[in-house]
Amino acid sequence: MMRNDSREPNQLRPVKITTNVNKHAEGSVLIEVGDTKVICTATVEERVPPFMKGQGKGWVTAEYAMLPRATHSRNQREAAKGKLTGRTMEIQRLIGRALRSVVDLSALGERTITLDCDVIQADGGTRTTSITGAFVALTLAVEHLSKTVSFNKYPIRDYLASVSVGVIQEKAMLDLNYEEDSKAKVDMNVVMTGQGKFVEVQGTGEESPFSREELNQLLALAESGIAELIGKQKEALGESASRIGG
Amino acid sequence: MMRNDSREPNQLRPVKITTNVNKHAEGSVLIEVGDTKVICTATVEERVPPFMKGQGKGWVTAEYAMLPRATHSRNQREAAKGKLTGRTMEIQRLIGRALRSVVDLSALGERTITLDCDVIQADGGTRTTSITGAFVALTLAVEHLSKTVSFNKYPIRDYLASVSVGVIQEKAMLDLNYEEDSKAKVDMNVVMTGQGKFVEVQGTGEESPFSREELNQLLALAESGIAELIGKQKEALGESASRIGG
Amino acid sequence: MMRNDSREPNQLRPVKITTNVNKHAEGSVLIEVGDTKVICTATVEERVPPFMKGQGKGWVTAEYAMLPRATHSRNQREAAKGKLTGRTMEIQRLIGRALRSVVDLSALGERTITLDCDVIQADGGTRTTSITGAFVALTLAVEHLSKTVSFNKYPIRDYLASVSVGVIQEKAMLDLNYEEDSKAKVDMNVVMTGQGKFVEVQGTGEESPFSREELNQLLALAESGIAELIGKQKEALGESASRIGG
Amino acid sequence: MMRNDSREPNQLRPVKITTNVNKHAEGSVLIEVGDTKVICTATVEERVPPFMKGQGKGWVTAEYAMLPRATHSRNQREAAKGKLTGRTMEIQRLIGRALRSVVDLSALGERTITLDCDVIQADGGTRTTSITGAFVALTLAVEHLSKTVSFNKYPIRDYLASVSVGVIQEKAMLDLNYEEDSKAKVDMNVVMTGQGKFVEVQGTGEESPFSREELNQLLALAESGIAELIGKQKEALGESASRIGG
Amino acid sequence: MMRNDSREPNQLRPVKITTNVNKHAEGSVLIEVGDTKVICTATVEERVPPFMKGQGKGWVTAEYAMLPRATHSRNQREAAKGKLTGRTMEIQRLIGRALRSVVDLSALGERTITLDCDVIQADGGTRTTSITGAFVALTLAVEHLSKTVSFNKYPIRDYLASVSVGVIQEKAMLDLNYEEDSKAKVDMNVVMTGQGKFVEVQGTGEESPFSREELNQLLALAESGIAELIGKQKEALGESASRIGG
Amino acid sequence: MMRNDSREPNQLRPVKITTNVNKHAEGSVLIEVGDTKVICTATVEERVPPFMKGQGKGWVTAEYAMLPRATHSRNQREAAKGKLTGRTMEIQRLIGRALRSVVDLSALGERTITLDCDVIQADGGTRTTSITGAFVALTLAVEHLSKTVSFNKYPIRDYLASVSVGVIQEKAMLDLNYEEDSKAKVDMNVVMTGQGKFVEVQGTGEESPFSREELNQLLALAESGIAELIGKQKEALGESASRIGG
Repeated sequence: MMRNDSREPNQLRPVKITTNVNKHAEGSVLIEVGDTKVICTATVEERVPPFMKGQGKGWVTAEYAMLPRATHSRNQREAAKGKLTGRTMEIQRLIGRALRSVVDLSALGERTITLDCDVIQADGGTRTTSITGAFVALTLAVEHLSKTVSFNKYPIRDYLASVSVGVIQEKAMLDLNYEEDSKAKVDMNVVMTGQGKFVEVQGTGEESPFSREELNQLLALAESGIAELIGKQKEALGESASRIGG
Repeated sequence: MMRNDSREPNQLRPVKITTNVNKHAEGSVLIEVGDTKVICTATVEERVPPFMKGQGKGWVTAEYAMLPRATHSRNQREAAKGKLTGRTMEIQRLIGRALRSVVDLSALGERTITLDCDVIQADGGTRTTSITGAFVALTLAVEHLSKTVSFNKYPIRDYLASVSVGVIQEKAMLDLNYEEDSKAKVDMNVVMTGQGKFVEVQGTGEESPFSREELNQLLALAESGIAELIGKQKEALGESASRIGG
Repeated sequence: MMRNDSREPNQLRPVKITTNVNKHAEGSVLIEVGDTKVICTATVEERVPPFMKGQGKGWVTAEYAMLPRATHSRNQREAAKGKLTGRTMEIQRLIGRALRSVVDLSALGERTITLDCDVIQADGGTRTTSITGAFVALTLAVEHLSKTVSFNKYPIRDYLASVSVGVIQEKAMLDLNYEEDSKAKVDMNVVMTGQGKFVEVQGTGEESPFSREELNQLLALAESGIAELIGKQKEALGESASRIGG
Repeated sequence: MMRNDSREPNQLRPVKITTNVNKHAEGSVLIEVGDTKVICTATVEERVPPFMKGQGKGWVTAEYAMLPRATHSRNQREAAKGKLTGRTMEIQRLIGRALRSVVDLSALGERTITLDCDVIQADGGTRTTSITGAFVALTLAVEHLSKTVSFNKYPIRDYLASVSVGVIQEKAMLDLNYEEDSKAKVDMNVVMTGQGKFVEVQGTGEESPFSREELNQLLALAESGIAELIGKQKEALGESASRIGG
Repeated sequence: MMRNDSREPNQLRPVKITTNVNKHAEGSVLIEVGDTKVICTATVEERVPPFMKGQGKGWVTAEYAMLPRATHSRNQREAAKGKLTGRTMEIQRLIGRALRSVVDLSALGERTITLDCDVIQADGGTRTTSITGAFVALTLAVEHLSKTVSFNKYPIRDYLASVSVGVIQEKAMLDLNYEEDSKAKVDMNVVMTGQGKFVEVQGTGEESPFSREELNQLLALAESGIAELIGKQKEALGESASRIGG
Repeated sequence: MMRNDSREPNQLRPVKITTNVNKHAEGSVLIEVGDTKVICTATVEERVPPFMKGQGKGWVTAEYAMLPRATHSRNQREAAKGKLTGRTMEIQRLIGRALRSVVDLSALGERTITLDCDVIQADGGTRTTSITGAFVALTLAVEHLSKTVSFNKYPIRDYLASVSVGVIQEKAMLDLNYEEDSKAKVDMNVVMTGQGKFVEVQGTGEESPFSREELNQLLALAESGIAELIGKQKEALGESASRIGG
């Protein structure tokens, strides 16, 4: 069986991370994974949300959206509908939670970093691509902060990236594009750290429950894909890369 | 280490499923898992949502809510806030998706079954308890339908139940109560079928990433807990139980 | 003429009040009047709403909702609609106003008691049943407060209960169930105190205006029904009952 | 005791009803009761709401609002808040229900008449004044319809007017103005027909429960006030008046 | 070509400004321009919005609405829809901006004046009529303030009025009524000061772009119409008129 | 006086129009005017809004938004606020109206083209840049349609572009950037056709009313700037350019 874009089952789509694409944001990237393109900006604000006040700790949060025509047919804007869909809320909660797992909030101090992930063009894997890109924007913002703030400890403890995996016609595949995703019987999003630990494992077999063995194959594929994505993050970050986890 | 309610690490809380607690609904249960109590009602309607029209198939969906004082301190009603929280949307999407994985929508025919899961009292595990209880209410509604509709094939393919597992002080534990859940470093919700296959695996290590080995321990605990829960479902359903997957 | 459940015109449906049904709430009851079942919880908070600040007085308020399948056919959740219906607002304003009429807000001190009335199953009279049950939950919460707060004066001045009455086929009837309510030409909800005074009289003859004489018959029926309901409240409250109005 | 505007306890404020104040509406009045001024317009539309379709009957409904500066201090617009208050919903449900009690919906045929009651200036009794004025606007709209539609039966069965009554310093008073209303211990709104029957009786003793005797005094006052208001309606309607109930 | 109401191309409709039509507001007018009727009230509050705090300056803002039956067919209330239309927001932003152009916010001091423009009956030109009327209500409110506050400098720098102009069948016309407005190919709203300067020029040729020459003709017509409207404002304001710009 | 980026008063910022930046949309461009960057996509749908049905005509509409960090400090998403701001509504109404002025809706046939203008980075002039870019995306979509639909008449009648002009320190300036815009006393947005006719003229002198002479200077500047922008559109469109107005 051939994948629709001729990739091997364990092959990522081409990945490109362009840094500093926004002149206003403290950190920003355009991340492209195949035809999926996401702008991630990091905004630093010197305040924390009410529930975090007075703890001497910072906060990291995320918002996610798609431009109306990021997809094959046009979607109504959530601003016009007057509310966020369940899908959007689920994704932005996931991105925020994942990023916080590698941030030392005490080291960050009482400030908030907001990661905005706006999908310019979608072709599958927009939530995992957002996490991978947002991590780089977050690190750039921390670097930017470093110029004026001296941290006792570097606030980013480890790398973090994410990829999707799935089962198509009984075969485990890495990094599904939109067409593959629609055919997959099992669909899993995995977030891992540079140390190879899991931060999120979200597998769904709505159309076909899966066995322990299939789960193991998918996790192995995700592990190799994420290691490769972290390599791309290191290239994009250059020297800053060496301070992470330091 | 002792659990705060003296259970063994691999021990469920007491489970009680009371059927037919609502005189109007086509299927209903009160499910109690420890101090967590959820009313699940199943409503059958002879129509499908617009996106399913004309396919000769049915639909199964779910809604979830907590009474304001189900929890230790009172929560504002979502109806008063004017919108659902991200948490509620995430949970009700999960319940619906999980139930659909064991329903043959073609066999069901062009009708919708809506499962309402209303948490009367909460003490951890409300989403997993909702899934376990909703499955029973769903089956009762299908039984109720059977009296007037003759299905070519029984629309429920397999049992389905769910449980939470987590890591507390380096130790994997089954079926966390609220106090345990707040202390857990890793938190995982698992949904499985009667055949022992996975339908959903949602693990989160926001405060502490987890290893492959820890993941394996958690899945093993969940597997045994879910088998036990399915035993309780069979007791509650009695004779109807034999038709599932038939 | 026979009532559809064989009651006499001046006969209440069976009434059952179960106290302390919720482990978190300061006061709680499950009240059943025939097939109408309502969970009432009382939450005490050590603050008052902005418009009451700095007056040295407390506040009592209520919220009301029905589970989606409390009724014969399923109702859409108000949380999903994004707003409360006029009916819900009208009912919760009524419950709060009625309860406040027997509370000495100065004696209560600067705290708020919120009564949540959630209808688990509906068969007519849900607003009057909510008032009768909420009064008991409120008293239990005040009892609970008494353990740690010493009141100069007991904050509850008198008993309070409520019942519906109506005219069906020219005949005044007490405590209408759903089927009777749909046939009634005149429909009235009455709230009275233990001293036999009126707190609310809300009579509507949308389909048939009513005479002064009919009004008098309805009020007499309500008076006897409410006296009986207050007897049930005293049984449910036991010893605490004696402090009311003391 | 003297009333703050020197009226007798059983005296209405000056009442003025100006008809046809709007060139677009099928019926319209400006009603002034003391300093309370309400514009009531009636709109006829040749369709009924979904729940009335196919029954060969019409519908009458009402909406109520106050201009932001109708009151002593400015109120935020409900349109700006994004939702109606409970008070507004309660009032507009009351107005609609009251008007329908004297309309023969079958005689009206499949059309909707919407009464908009907009309070231009408020000084107590805005809901009762709205009902009294809306009845006249409704009748004018039916007259307007009569020019092109031949009714089998005149759709308005009887006159309808409304007034408030209350207890101030132990004394029953008719038609409270704003200052009186704020001091009243008992507050009651009554709607009656030309035949002297009750359509709505809404009495509230939030600050002081009331006896059967007080209730009787209030109803007697209301009865005389409403008879007088119906006299004013007849003057305003002139010849059309004679067809009502015909 | 004759205008539908027999006016000359450069002739305004009859203008009538009645002052002090509301007993609660600090300033109020009923302005009638032909069949267009708007109630404008000015409310003074001793606070400024958050973004103006601590600057020692005041604020002037406006809100605009139409009664549902102000127009030929009934419009749904924005309060019922739960949100303002784009048209309403555009108009109220315009009114506020226009009024601020002639107010010395420093001279006003830290207070807010809110102009509510409620269209009672509409026949074209509601936004321009609102501006012309609101200016008078604003001046009356400043006069009212003058009784208790001594301004270093009179806070109103100049007169301000507004009119619409348009091109109908190749001919420039002043002050379009509704029927004319629907036929106009070019539609322009102009706001000018007593000194003859422009504050707002909003010209739209959605159905037919317009030349520089047409623009010039329209501006000349507007200039003469606005001078006439300012004359009416002076009459309405009487003696107060002399302090403006003083 | 020097402009902050060393431009002459009558000089545009560098303009760059990149076509076909989105693989899903029927027409798309990235337009950059100085540091202002907007993605414009055109979506063709084979249906018209309800108010246009059955007229044999098409519809052109627009939506506008800014990414949260398009600006110097982060703006809350309108989707999170649950409603569009007045500014957004005003801008998207303007874009739609302007584009429709050069489209022959009958020639287009019963279909809708929606222009989404999403500001990726803002530095002044986002609404005028959106119009200039959206015109190109619209033309590309019509070209795309031309491959499958044979139009009796080419649906685009003329070019259309837009620019801002303003008065800074008594001097008229073309194409203001953000810093200039904040200092301008008069601010005007002009939309013109390829034939040099006006479609929209929106001038505001909130802080300083302007004279007829200033208005004339501003219009002259806008005229020359728009001619230049139309030159850029022609380059971007290449051959398609020749069919416009044909």
